[in-house]
Amino acid sequence: MRAVDLIRKKRDCGELSREETGFLVSGYTSGEIPDYQMAAWLMAAWIRGLNRAEIAALTEVMLHSGEVLSLSEIPGRKVDKHSTGGVGDKTSLILAPIVAAGGLTVPMISGRGLGHTGGTLDKLEAIPGFNTNLSLAEFRSVLHECGMGLIGQTAEIAPADKKIYALRDVTSTVESAGLICASIMSKKLAEGIDALVLDVKTGSGAFMKKEEDSVRLAEVMVETGKRMGKKVVALITDMNQPLGRMAGHSNEVWESMEVLKGRGPDDLRDLSLELSAWMFFLGERTKSVDEGRALSEKLVATCQALEKFRQGIRLQGGDERVVDEPERLPQARFHAEVISPAAGYVNITNCEQLGTALAVLGGGREKKEDKVDHAVGLEFHKRIGDHVEKNEKLVTIHYNSDAKLAEAKNLISSSYVVSESAPREQRALVRRIIGA
Amino acid sequence: MRAVDLIRKKRDCGELSREETGFLVSGYTSGEIPDYQMAAWLMAAWIRGLNRAEIAALTEVMLHSGEVLSLSEIPGRKVDKHSTGGVGDKTSLILAPIVAAGGLTVPMISGRGLGHTGGTLDKLEAIPGFNTNLSLAEFRSVLHECGMGLIGQTAEIAPADKKIYALRDVTSTVESAGLICASIMSKKLAEGIDALVLDVKTGSGAFMKKEEDSVRLAEVMVETGKRMGKKVVALITDMNQPLGRMAGHSNEVWESMEVLKGRGPDDLRDLSLELSAWMFFLGERTKSVDEGRALSEKLVATCQALEKFRQGIRLQGGDERVVDEPERLPQARFHAEVISPAAGYVNITNCEQLGTALAVLGGGREKKEDKVDHAVGLEFHKRIGDHVEKNEKLVTIHYNSDAKLAEAKNLISSSYVVSESAPREQRALVRRIIGA
Repeated sequence: MRAVDLIRKKRDCGELSREETGFLVSGYTSGEIPDYQMAAWLMAAWIRGLNRAEIAALTEVMLHSGEVLSLSEIPGRKVDKHSTGGVGDKTSLILAPIVAAGGLTVPMISGRGLGHTGGTLDKLEAIPGFNTNLSLAEFRSVLHECGMGLIGQTAEIAPADKKIYALRDVTSTVESAGLICASIMSKKLAEGIDALVLDVKTGSGAFMKKEEDSVRLAEVMVETGKRMGKKVVALITDMNQPLGRMAGHSNEVWESMEVLKGRGPDDLRDLSLELSAWMFFLGERTKSVDEGRALSEKLVATCQALEKFRQGIRLQGGDERVVDEPERLPQARFHAEVISPAAGYVNITNCEQLGTALAVLGGGREKKEDKVDHAVGLEFHKRIGDHVEKNEKLVTIHYNSDAKLAEAKNLISSSYVVSESAPREQRALVRRIIGA
Repeated sequence: MRAVDLIRKKRDCGELSREETGFLVSGYTSGEIPDYQMAAWLMAAWIRGLNRAEIAALTEVMLHSGEVLSLSEIPGRKVDKHSTGGVGDKTSLILAPIVAAGGLTVPMISGRGLGHTGGTLDKLEAIPGFNTNLSLAEFRSVLHECGMGLIGQTAEIAPADKKIYALRDVTSTVESAGLICASIMSKKLAEGIDALVLDVKTGSGAFMKKEEDSVRLAEVMVETGKRMGKKVVALITDMNQPLGRMAGHSNEVWESMEVLKGRGPDDLRDLSLELSAWMFFLGERTKSVDEGRALSEKLVATCQALEKFRQGIRLQGGDERVVDEPERLPQARFHAEVISPAAGYVNITNCEQLGTALAVLGGGREKKEDKVDHAVGLEFHKRIGDHVEKNEKLVTIHYNSDAKLAEAKNLISSSYVVSESAPREQRALVRRIIGA
């Protein structure tokens, strides 16, 4: 078998067998197949597409390129959630303690922010001392003790994905349903979970802007997970505006704790509880999603979820005092406002630009090696459809250096449109459910 | 400007500007853009295609990546021929001395064989001592003295093409009209020629199997050459069977000299004289192609072309005695026959396999670094439509080692079909002329 023939086959719209996919991925991971051949294959796969059988084979091969955790020594079901990413998307910090407090185990291996989207690991690291680089042994121990653990992709987990993802990033082969599915599912299935809830974002702040693309990706991921014997459901959720009122690492930890304290904005609270409800249902903790929602509400109301969050912070080396004293989170030195140029109704036409503005201020990355500033952030005062007066605040910027403040302001103000008539009726936060 | 954005643009069916093409090619040639990004772009370009403006830009940028010869110190017109390659295609060895004997200058920078096709340089090197690695200064001196020079691509000529071609070879991005055109034309236009005759092969022994693909490639090359102020014509010629009766390096030098001596097979003689006729016409040596053909015939009949060949060999360090004593060419030690399994009419269904059989015997290359055996060869006794008796010879194999003789025999015998009825009427050797 030769890589050049497999490239040609995909180029000519052929279907790779499981054996051929294995040859390509293991050859690339071991270094026998060079970057340039994998890059040509990835572009052919991006353009020609992968069918369901090819995606399943790619996922399995990438999954088995590294260690697949077995958590059988921990009693009960293991469940996780994965989001395709957006602006202000902080539900993991809320639902992980809820679900762990409810008695399931949440072994969550997360990513870092890239481009306009934030990452769970970066948010957690805003908590002084919080260590996301646990060894697999430490991870097991934390999971055993408190039912939730939040770490980054280790060298042992899906090394093929790590190498392929880095190459996709620099060869414009990221946004392909098949390749995205294999990348996500190979990592998630390596966690040793029984069930997975997918939050597939759609809209101007999502990677997939069009709902039909999000649905297609969701369908492929659900089918791939089910083929491998897992319970999987995907929620297609709105990302035309930030989730909650806060973006930025310290800001998002603060807002997550607000929800865990029974406060916080409705949209963030509703989505977090909806996702945890599905996790309870798929994890067989409750008999229905409705029961799962009721259980989630109870765990928040009784502060059991907040105490689980505190325990999780402590076990991963973080300063648990932030729970009661959020001012211990890194704070930006300066605030600035973006105000409305006119009275009228607010619309957000480019949510991705809001994420980019945060990244420009230092709160995100252009390249994987970049460091992030946990203190900078954005506070959104108006949601789509809200009325605003002339000169009223739209966004408060929390920043540390004014080097790029003007660029950020410009990105933010050009994301908003204020017009005399209200935008068309708001669509639901949860658009569709796939795989239920 | 970033390579990743240019990859994305081509992936999404966009058109690269001249400036963007320049950024990509010069960045890749200098090593700033890595192999894997160029590989992704090449695959996107292969699948999405390049339009005429993009092909012209790519050709120009690759041409100017290195030295462009000026031969203005040599009086008269400079003309060349390029063939897309096939089995037994040795016309360069015949027409170069004819055209030089007719008073034009032929600065021919040729390639080596790869895969199933032969290369002019390899054939010339069958002549003991013949040096195809002249410096550009030596090349000029030879051209000045005898009107023809035959060398390989130097490091100074179109270095971008050299690097990109090597990458295309290992990423399955060879057979694209736009990329082939830019590769060929950037090298040929660097020769400082006024006119170019293209021999675009079509059929089972050509890179382009379908006539419409050959025509499209010819049209693109003719237009690109004309955009750059050159006279260009393309002949679409048949490659469903070997040209002449001989394949292999020594064999082909011998057969070329036969034509220069007024003998040799009709098809080889006709095509060589047709191509030289067009070179005389485009080089303004004759007022018509017919006059060019008459001049070519005269130069052969009077042995002026043969004497020019002898002079060319001498000036490039070769043993000119081969002209009168062809047995001085390397000879294979053994002969074997492939015979007809039945009486009937001959058809050749896979001419490419005949070229592959020669390569398998050591007369061709799998990889660029491979060495070739000049002595091995094939002698074809029957052309398509010929009648053959049972057990009559189809092909004589000249070989040195029987390690792969069985494989070669198998490739050859499975290329022939002998059937009771004659194949449909033979099509003309020259199918169409593009750009006249």
